[in-house]
Amino acid sequence: MKDLPGMPGTPGGLGLRVLQLLFAAISLAVMSSTADFASVSAFCYLITTTVLQCVWSLTVAIVDIYALLVKRCLRNRRAVTLFSIGDGITWLVSLSGACAAAGITVLIDADLIMCSENPCASFQTAVAMGFMCCFSLLPSFLLNFYSIASSHG
Amino acid sequence: MKDLPGMPGTPGGLGLRVLQLLFAAISLAVMSSTADFASVSAFCYLITTTVLQCVWSLTVAIVDIYALLVKRCLRNRRAVTLFSIGDGITWLVSLSGACAAAGITVLIDADLIMCSENPCASFQTAVAMGFMCCFSLLPSFLLNFYSIASSHG
Repeated sequence: MKDLPGMPGTPGGLGLRVLQLLFAAISLAVMSSTADFASVSAFCYLITTTVLQCVWSLTVAIVDIYALLVKRCLRNRRAVTLFSIGDGITWLVSLSGACAAAGITVLIDADLIMCSENPCASFQTAVAMGFMCCFSLLPSFLLNFYSIASSHG
Repeated sequence: MKDLPGMPGTPGGLGLRVLQLLFAAISLAVMSSTADFASVSAFCYLITTTVLQCVWSLTVAIVDIYALLVKRCLRNRRAVTLFSIGDGITWLVSLSGACAAAGITVLIDADLIMCSENPCASFQTAVAMGFMCCFSLLPSFLLNFYSIASSHG
């Protein structure tokens, strides 16, 4: 199994997790602070996905910190497969949440032009942070998946 | 490079492409047939993504048919990398389109309860076909990506 920067148990991997956690937490905080998110299903779904993202990134970050502290290598096939499946599912859920919320935000902002009655800036920030979170999760997933596939080659 | 069913240039791969083309075409036809899709950006985006999906799947299907007819092997690294990048981009775009349209459909259907004024059944069918299209594209992408990674191992 190859040793690539950004994989679980490396400082790069930990950095990616902290970044994901940060983006997901900002998205969650901004969306939760709006008054009427509960009336739109897509915004509730975005909040659910960011909570899932926070829990997953925090868990893996703790495992990474432990592995770095005791200098233990996490690159055995079972651990990488587990991380890869978890990353894949979390990424898919986060992306769908961000896209659904983006659809509604564009509808309110550009199609109905109702920004005076709604906190459009908050919606936009939350959606943008949701997308940033997805983009920072993608390298983790691809590296893990690539690493599994390489070890089968 | 491994020979897996569902890869470009195999009958399984051609079957997947035909399935993608079918789902994308149904989604496009149903969404275009609604009267007021143009007033919602997310629905216009869904139509754009299904057009992109149709063009991509048709192109690769034609290449597959040619490869099957002349019994030529498409499994060299350059071709598989090209198919993999194309599949990845198309999949991402299709998924985001389907999710955004799904967000709006749920908003109209469940949150605002405006189905009497809107063709909700058409919106739901178009979104469902968009998701089916994504799911039928995923195996193609994962197989190609896996095959590239394996050949590097």
